[in-house]
Amino acid sequence: MERVRVALLGCGSVGSQVAAALAAGSESVHELSARAGATIELVGVAVRDASTPREGVDDELLTTDAEGLVTRADVVVELIGGLEPARSLLLKAFEHGASVVTGNKALLAAHGRELHAAADAAGVDLYFEAAVAGAIPIIRPLRESLAGDRVERVLGIVNGTTNFVLDEMDSRGASFDDAVSRAQELGYAEADPTADVDGWDAAAKAAILATLAFHTPVTLDDVHREGIRGVSAEDVAAAREAGAVVKLLAVAERTTGQDDDGAAFEGVQARVHPVLLSRDHPLASVRGAYNAVFVEAAGAGDLMFYGQGAGGRPTASAVLGDLVTLARHRQDGSQGPRVLGHADLPVLPTDAVRTRYQVRLVVADRPGVLAAVAQAFAAHGVSIETVRQRPSVAGALAGDGGVASLVVVTHTAADAALAGCVADLSELDAVASVASVLRVEGDS
Amino acid sequence: MERVRVALLGCGSVGSQVAAALAAGSESVHELSARAGATIELVGVAVRDASTPREGVDDELLTTDAEGLVTRADVVVELIGGLEPARSLLLKAFEHGASVVTGNKALLAAHGRELHAAADAAGVDLYFEAAVAGAIPIIRPLRESLAGDRVERVLGIVNGTTNFVLDEMDSRGASFDDAVSRAQELGYAEADPTADVDGWDAAAKAAILATLAFHTPVTLDDVHREGIRGVSAEDVAAAREAGAVVKLLAVAERTTGQDDDGAAFEGVQARVHPVLLSRDHPLASVRGAYNAVFVEAAGAGDLMFYGQGAGGRPTASAVLGDLVTLARHRQDGSQGPRVLGHADLPVLPTDAVRTRYQVRLVVADRPGVLAAVAQAFAAHGVSIETVRQRPSVAGALAGDGGVASLVVVTHTAADAALAGCVADLSELDAVASVASVLRVEGDS
Repeated sequence: MERVRVALLGCGSVGSQVAAALAAGSESVHELSARAGATIELVGVAVRDASTPREGVDDELLTTDAEGLVTRADVVVELIGGLEPARSLLLKAFEHGASVVTGNKALLAAHGRELHAAADAAGVDLYFEAAVAGAIPIIRPLRESLAGDRVERVLGIVNGTTNFVLDEMDSRGASFDDAVSRAQELGYAEADPTADVDGWDAAAKAAILATLAFHTPVTLDDVHREGIRGVSAEDVAAAREAGAVVKLLAVAERTTGQDDDGAAFEGVQARVHPVLLSRDHPLASVRGAYNAVFVEAAGAGDLMFYGQGAGGRPTASAVLGDLVTLARHRQDGSQGPRVLGHADLPVLPTDAVRTRYQVRLVVADRPGVLAAVAQAFAAHGVSIETVRQRPSVAGALAGDGGVASLVVVTHTAADAALAGCVADLSELDAVASVASVLRVEGDS
Repeated sequence: MERVRVALLGCGSVGSQVAAALAAGSESVHELSARAGATIELVGVAVRDASTPREGVDDELLTTDAEGLVTRADVVVELIGGLEPARSLLLKAFEHGASVVTGNKALLAAHGRELHAAADAAGVDLYFEAAVAGAIPIIRPLRESLAGDRVERVLGIVNGTTNFVLDEMDSRGASFDDAVSRAQELGYAEADPTADVDGWDAAAKAAILATLAFHTPVTLDDVHREGIRGVSAEDVAAAREAGAVVKLLAVAERTTGQDDDGAAFEGVQARVHPVLLSRDHPLASVRGAYNAVFVEAAGAGDLMFYGQGAGGRPTASAVLGDLVTLARHRQDGSQGPRVLGHADLPVLPTDAVRTRYQVRLVVADRPGVLAAVAQAFAAHGVSIETVRQRPSVAGALAGDGGVASLVVVTHTAADAALAGCVADLSELDAVASVASVLRVEGDS
């Protein structure tokens, strides 16, 4: 069997699990080698401080010279995260003919096109199963299993922190702040939860999913992004009453744009935002910090992939799966399928997001109100799908009796049209307030 | 781009979809070729009667000479089903250096070892994503994504017909016979539903899943098989009351055997039988004719793959995904990972199945009964996990008042011990009848 030299960059929660699995003489590295048909050998672990011993890692493997290390490897496993020096190290690895396994979603979402092109030019592989939804096999299914199909849409719960927070709000009636505190206590959220709750992490994954699903490079800048800070306990409770749940979804979909002459063209779009989802939808039952990716394909129909989206061991499983594949590729001189788009569809601008909406209004409980509200929607060309009206509990408790809640769900509408509509609604005498505006996904 | 000649064997519901996707000059074959990096060309379609025209298939491609056709192809797509002539045609294809895509679960479950060995010897590929759970990518994830992990157990709802039948019984209170009739009306069940309801189809898939998950050849004969004919409307209703659902599961798991000297050894086991599953389990929410496969891995934790398990278009999606991969392999002279076991663990005999059980008893409602029942379990070394006792509704309606229902859930027990226990229970004076015995899966 050929010898495949592996360089590990980073030895944190995932890296230390990978290092342990590759420990010289271990049963696991023997098993992985048998599966790869090549002798896998860990030749170095790049860390910031090589003087601190790491449990389960031979001290002699530790080095601070990441640049030197990548030049003496056949496969580089990059788990340091961030844009630099990760990007430069990967480019250097490709230059030296090494393949790369990475879990670095931020890097791929920012520089995916450059990195995939560099790997292709060097005739080596860039694999990244760990970058989206941790242990859940989703990259390989999109890249290979569905290669004979046409993916129409991908909906993903790809951020465990926000899913945990929303689930706490749903199942325990917690406020947003309390749910975030609890997520922090349990280690699901960082002290500064911005990257998660504002949707940055999910947006990077949306870019990667869109790139793969549509054979078209999509970057973080292309992704429309809204976080969950605006989701109130009241929104979640109202959703619950209506048989729905609020989830933060990463959405990648084919859509139709219009050029300056009004002609339609096919494009793709990626976005991250909270949505109302019917409890009948398979994604609605994804609880706690779990992840799931729902794929709608022309041939296969609806598919869902479910599992743990984070954590050292699960993520290491994805990294090691890629490593076995790349070691096998080194052995037989082959490469995985190209990621970079032969399709290269236009990526539609983020101001052109079209979804269905639920608008919750507090209105005067008197005849004619519905007509006025309906007129405001019609004036902006926003078509109404359903209206539910019921006496407001809050109003009844306050004893004013004359207030009702009106919940309007629209057909697909553009952001701008909906915004104009909401502005007009708040001007209406009969409307006390626009209590919330939420996007809606799933079958109507 | 290299030219890859494709021979299609069979032109039924799946084959006709594949033929349409590969029609010369079509947009789809152009797209598939772009993804494969090779020019995919359909060179013939073997059918029983070449004189009947097939919609969307060039008449000149039709042939009854399957044997001749496989010798002039680079990739053979086998969709005729059954053991012969499929087996001989595949062996001939390998002899001539062709790779094979098949959806033939019966053939793989019976002759998988021979066929994989023949493919390996010829240095070509045998791919079979369509053989288990139709469009759901499960073969590639097990074979490649989880190559760096240790799969402990696979639980699959892999037969849509029986899942539809059990779901009808659960959601509409239908009897087994009525549910089967409805499945037949809707085209989910054959006129002779034996292969589905007696678990043959699921057992073939269990053998394939076990082979992949444990790198160990497992055949249909190795699979313990029980169908769903014995599941009554009363069982399903009682499960519902207890917050559970009855599902037919294909189970492949690592387990421990004992040799003649009493020493423990690691082995694998595959089985198909109805189980009681808590409604909290992700598989419990798989409705209608959908399929799902739940994987428990040491590193990745719990994963689930969900989607359509049958149908012409979904299954064709799986076939075409494999075809694109194999065309790419032809182009670069590579092969996928081997299926045949480097592990080759012992396959434990089917009489050594150990599961938890739910035993539902109709008993006299008087003191001392529980002690007598508990003693019967203890006498056979079967440990009790929970007991629920409640007045029987049927008894109350009949006015006899003195009858109660006792539901006993055991810890893991061997088939033989449980059978002995049930025999003793039915001899007890206090036991009117053993109403049902069902295996239990999922966390206790």
